[in-house]
Amino acid sequence: MTIIGITMGCPAGIGPEIILRSFAGTTKFADIQPVVLGDKHVLEKCGEELGLPAPCIDWTPGTPLPTELTGNCIPVVQLSSFEPGDIECGHPNKATGRAMAHYIETGVKLAQQGMIHGIATCPISKSSLNDAGYHFPGHTEMLASLTKTSSFAMMLAGNKLRVTLVTIHCPLSEVAHRLTMEAVYRMIRTTHQALTIDFAIRDPKIAVAGFNPHGGENRLFGSEEEQIISPAIKQAQTEQINVSGPYPPDTLFYKAASGAFDAVVCMYHDQGLIPFKLLHFDDGVNITLGLPIVRTSVDHGTAYDIAGKGLASHQSLDEAIKLAAVISRNRATQQEREA
Amino acid sequence: MTIIGITMGCPAGIGPEIILRSFAGTTKFADIQPVVLGDKHVLEKCGEELGLPAPCIDWTPGTPLPTELTGNCIPVVQLSSFEPGDIECGHPNKATGRAMAHYIETGVKLAQQGMIHGIATCPISKSSLNDAGYHFPGHTEMLASLTKTSSFAMMLAGNKLRVTLVTIHCPLSEVAHRLTMEAVYRMIRTTHQALTIDFAIRDPKIAVAGFNPHGGENRLFGSEEEQIISPAIKQAQTEQINVSGPYPPDTLFYKAASGAFDAVVCMYHDQGLIPFKLLHFDDGVNITLGLPIVRTSVDHGTAYDIAGKGLASHQSLDEAIKLAAVISRNRATQQEREA
Repeated sequence: MTIIGITMGCPAGIGPEIILRSFAGTTKFADIQPVVLGDKHVLEKCGEELGLPAPCIDWTPGTPLPTELTGNCIPVVQLSSFEPGDIECGHPNKATGRAMAHYIETGVKLAQQGMIHGIATCPISKSSLNDAGYHFPGHTEMLASLTKTSSFAMMLAGNKLRVTLVTIHCPLSEVAHRLTMEAVYRMIRTTHQALTIDFAIRDPKIAVAGFNPHGGENRLFGSEEEQIISPAIKQAQTEQINVSGPYPPDTLFYKAASGAFDAVVCMYHDQGLIPFKLLHFDDGVNITLGLPIVRTSVDHGTAYDIAGKGLASHQSLDEAIKLAAVISRNRATQQEREA
Repeated sequence: MTIIGITMGCPAGIGPEIILRSFAGTTKFADIQPVVLGDKHVLEKCGEELGLPAPCIDWTPGTPLPTELTGNCIPVVQLSSFEPGDIECGHPNKATGRAMAHYIETGVKLAQQGMIHGIATCPISKSSLNDAGYHFPGHTEMLASLTKTSSFAMMLAGNKLRVTLVTIHCPLSEVAHRLTMEAVYRMIRTTHQALTIDFAIRDPKIAVAGFNPHGGENRLFGSEEEQIISPAIKQAQTEQINVSGPYPPDTLFYKAASGAFDAVVCMYHDQGLIPFKLLHFDDGVNITLGLPIVRTSVDHGTAYDIAGKGLASHQSLDEAIKLAAVISRNRATQQEREA
């Protein structure tokens, strides 16, 4: 049985709702036991308001998971104790910020201790994280700090498309200055390693996207392909990585989604995110590569505008739980092989 | 009956093949009669080699279309006379360049004279166009010159998504410098006009994409949204155009494809082309907005690598023919209303 800890995310966001839906859903997780790192009071109140079952039971990490858990019970590691009235949907505050940070810290600790096999994280609010005194630009950077990881990357994965990003959150006009051969090369390697180990794909096929329209069309529309991207690909090829490109971006994602490649290394945020969200709006999963623990995340935010309204989809959380279990098993298999 | 002239494009490309497939196909064009502006010898030879029917008959523009055309006959305006052996698939030359330019010139003339209602163009080779002495960066610029049009734009249209582009063929690193409020505003107006007249949509809903990740996230990742795009949208809104944005690009195309918008105004080539080709790889149509004649085009190139091999899809040509007819009828209806 693979135990995946779901951090509840911001208590005032859609985290509690999608957790209840995931447990109530028809989706059965074969050999996976999800447990919630959060607050049963919040879950129960959310269940009452939305008419969702919330049969929470306390679970103490390290103790056996009781047999009755095979039903629809929700094992909760109780990490905060909000009273009814403390939480207003869509309105985070310092207390919700502190609580959600504590869920994450506990998730990391339990994963490091081997009490759970990985974490699937529900969305947090960056601003209320900061208000609560946790000064990180985001979720991933906090996890990197907790696990003392300096080199990490984001992969977005769905059953049709996987993408990684060489640059992420910066103005588009600055991307050209930030692209370096070294950064492209490292992202190819990181992507290769994730596909090989986390996804257990033998000799995975990686495509690298160009940067300019038509991939520069022989330097007519830019030279980043020739000067930065191609040398990085050549370098990775000398290390027996099955990588090719740079491909004209406009047709590449159709080909990748049709099965020609196992992943696409993208040069900037929207180059990867536009096609990914078009194909996987509801069921995309965000994976942090490079961490010593397994971490997947839903591919959406706290959605304060719809929190508490019963409109949120739990598909992404379901996929995040399943993928965390798959990655944890694949990493274990790999470690056994190496041992 | 709406008569649509298909310019045959480069005789050594996939134009002849997709024309034969389109006529042989099961798709029936209700009340549309496509006619080919090209070369029956090339069509017949292509048909022989690929086992496709090529029942060409000569048609002189201005004369009635014979009744037997309702069968599978291909009416051809004979504009070149290549002998067997003159054309090698995948290898254009000066003669093919001159011929394909002549097809286009004739198509424009016939459309201007009202002998045909619009043109659907097969792909040309830009370099052999130049070798033949026609110095245009591309197909569209040649059509603009022939029709003395200074202001024109490209729309890509499919049944799920329509996009227009504020900038097109330039290095991505230069897009930020080229974006102006005036250019965004004009593209919103052009898009509105096309949706209203060419597509006969009442009060069409237009979305404008942001430029930076998350639409700049309150200037954290760039300021083009606030300084350039938003003012352009506001200006268009004062003219009763139903336009909104700028939207974060990563989720916008999913929403547009789900029916929330009739078209998306995009800031750069791949922002529009990546999602468009993902949804409409085979059946996308390219429309030139702003010309005094109706012109649609297949949304692919000459594909010299597969020319003569029987691999090309005629879906985009079918859609281009149908859309040319729709636009021509909608423009006629609009003119009647104004008269």
